[in-house]
Amino acid sequence: MFTPVYLDHNATTPVDPVVLDAMLPYLSSQHGNASSRHEYGRAARRAVDEARSKVAAALGAHASEVVFTSGGSEANNLLIKGVAACLKPGLLAVSAIEHPCVIRPAEQLRKRGWTLQKLAVDANGRIDGANFQAVMAEQPRIVSVMLANNETGVIQDVESLAAQASAAGAWFHTDAVQAVGKMAVDFRRLNAAGVHALSLSAHKIGGPKGVAALVVDKRLDIEPLIAGGGHERGLRSGTENVAAIVGFGVACELAAARRLANGERLLALRRRVERGLRALGATLFGQAAERLPNTVCFAFPELDGETLVGQLDRDGYAVASGAACSSANPEPSHVLQAMGVAPELARGAVRVSLGFVNTDAEIDGFLVTLQATVLRLHQLTAMAV
Amino acid sequence: MFTPVYLDHNATTPVDPVVLDAMLPYLSSQHGNASSRHEYGRAARRAVDEARSKVAAALGAHASEVVFTSGGSEANNLLIKGVAACLKPGLLAVSAIEHPCVIRPAEQLRKRGWTLQKLAVDANGRIDGANFQAVMAEQPRIVSVMLANNETGVIQDVESLAAQASAAGAWFHTDAVQAVGKMAVDFRRLNAAGVHALSLSAHKIGGPKGVAALVVDKRLDIEPLIAGGGHERGLRSGTENVAAIVGFGVACELAAARRLANGERLLALRRRVERGLRALGATLFGQAAERLPNTVCFAFPELDGETLVGQLDRDGYAVASGAACSSANPEPSHVLQAMGVAPELARGAVRVSLGFVNTDAEIDGFLVTLQATVLRLHQLTAMAV
Repeated sequence: MFTPVYLDHNATTPVDPVVLDAMLPYLSSQHGNASSRHEYGRAARRAVDEARSKVAAALGAHASEVVFTSGGSEANNLLIKGVAACLKPGLLAVSAIEHPCVIRPAEQLRKRGWTLQKLAVDANGRIDGANFQAVMAEQPRIVSVMLANNETGVIQDVESLAAQASAAGAWFHTDAVQAVGKMAVDFRRLNAAGVHALSLSAHKIGGPKGVAALVVDKRLDIEPLIAGGGHERGLRSGTENVAAIVGFGVACELAAARRLANGERLLALRRRVERGLRALGATLFGQAAERLPNTVCFAFPELDGETLVGQLDRDGYAVASGAACSSANPEPSHVLQAMGVAPELARGAVRVSLGFVNTDAEIDGFLVTLQATVLRLHQLTAMAV
Repeated sequence: MFTPVYLDHNATTPVDPVVLDAMLPYLSSQHGNASSRHEYGRAARRAVDEARSKVAAALGAHASEVVFTSGGSEANNLLIKGVAACLKPGLLAVSAIEHPCVIRPAEQLRKRGWTLQKLAVDANGRIDGANFQAVMAEQPRIVSVMLANNETGVIQDVESLAAQASAAGAWFHTDAVQAVGKMAVDFRRLNAAGVHALSLSAHKIGGPKGVAALVVDKRLDIEPLIAGGGHERGLRSGTENVAAIVGFGVACELAAARRLANGERLLALRRRVERGLRALGATLFGQAAERLPNTVCFAFPELDGETLVGQLDRDGYAVASGAACSSANPEPSHVLQAMGVAPELARGAVRVSLGFVNTDAEIDGFLVTLQATVLRLHQLTAMAV
């Protein structure tokens, strides 16, 4: 079987075998509905409670602050639309580089009388301080700025931004889907700084797809997106996805235990990739900003990103062009556009996102293949012109 | 290990081993994000497409009419709130015996200017024809009536109701979560009669928790509840839960293939339960109505349902008192109340919901245990008085 080298961990990660082992009983003998009042149900409830404690512990949160959802997109929609539904319409501010699952629900709120302001970033993808201050002066009711960007890996100074937003009277949310497991994320500390809610997702950290959480300050009123049986303190109804929740708990536990070691390992791998890319003449995005240890976003002038990704795929390397979730969209990345990258260059963007399972040898093989591919594509381009 | 006899299949079903086998590759080596444009992603996309075809085929629908969601609650909320968001506020009619995940979102719409009318049922739990006609004369914009009730198993004549609702200009939805796998459900035929959308859920038919679908006529405009990357034709964003979707596809395929044989087997088991219950002097709810072949809801006058369920659990039989999803709620069942059952009797309600894995011997053992339990509880009650 042909097994390409997987360098796309920001799109999704393999389920850790330890996580899968923990899930399996809940996909077979332990099949109860956690709301049932018999032994099958109680066993499921205990498993959900234990997983909730693990997720909370990994983030320095209290178990009662963890609301399980079916994914990061649901967590972000729940926060944006659920909080807005409890407030009088006003100003909503989200960064221009948010994931579509923050931007689209924010745009939907316009129909409900809300004004949407997109927060600008600088050339390195960091929130523009002057613009942020100016928007805060207009007293937004809700502000959402991601902890780390999925495409570039650029990290925001969320504590400082949240402090300013909270001082202006806003509820502050951060999408930490890409951050958790790759950098220190402590909800208690963030909460003290003024962060009221945080999203994370299992399948980005070795857990299964189909489960995520919104960690939320209980002072925040939220109208459920999915109403019904009243699960998750009334904030999210629906039969608990027990096996996935159990896997999420274990994935959080592993991510927290391994973070420091993984972080160093990933950073060494990323630097290896970056040295190679610079030697090949690539442009690296967000270079001057603090970034996740596993993410590099780059482009070669005059080479199309999609074409490059397709060629690398045929040669055995799985990387991404732009965000996987919106790759049906042929537009150049909205993240790079917000950073002022010219559309021609942005169309060349390729993302390598590493996992701790990647090896030096894989990186070296990738760089050799990339060099050959870039050369060939340049020759083809030259011939076409 | 103590393994109680499971008689609570309407709450959730064990994952069929064939389903789990189909899922496992997508929880290990086949870990791609279905939106990724490399081999891992394409393999995931093929798996999702194939599962979508299987779900559609089992229901006589077209694959493009299937929208995957994280559960039945999400499917029902998407339909109710998503359709309402595309219409001018008006009258919304849902039956008084709907699952809370239809009733609660319908109630939420009141805040948005909608009027909610609950459709009455008769003493056997069937929609009251005269009341239905009267409500249709008020031209509701959305009507939702479940195909079969989760507590009593009572089946509605949805084709006839949908025809009347459609003639009155309404969009008609049916929650088929409990019906699929236990009776014939053909979306093409229902659609021809005037049903525009139908919900079903994997974990009620031997599939995993955390995945379900809304099958929907494409003429129906729906605003997504979860907006973002534009998955599921823009109706439901979020990384596809590939393993669960694959399992759902196989579960639908199995359910369709086994339905006739299972239906006969379940009906024979149900009749065995019912004969025993009548001999013990139980009241059976919805007796005169057509019901699912696997569901019996009953009560013993003067005995509390919760107490009975707890005692049966200790004696090795897992049954439900009222709907599992709202069993945190000490109120007597809203379904039985709508049927005009006196609250004292409704508080005694116990639900047995069979699976095709149950045996005659299990039923006989259950009836013997039930008789002993009822006798003991009656004695205790008599002593207390």
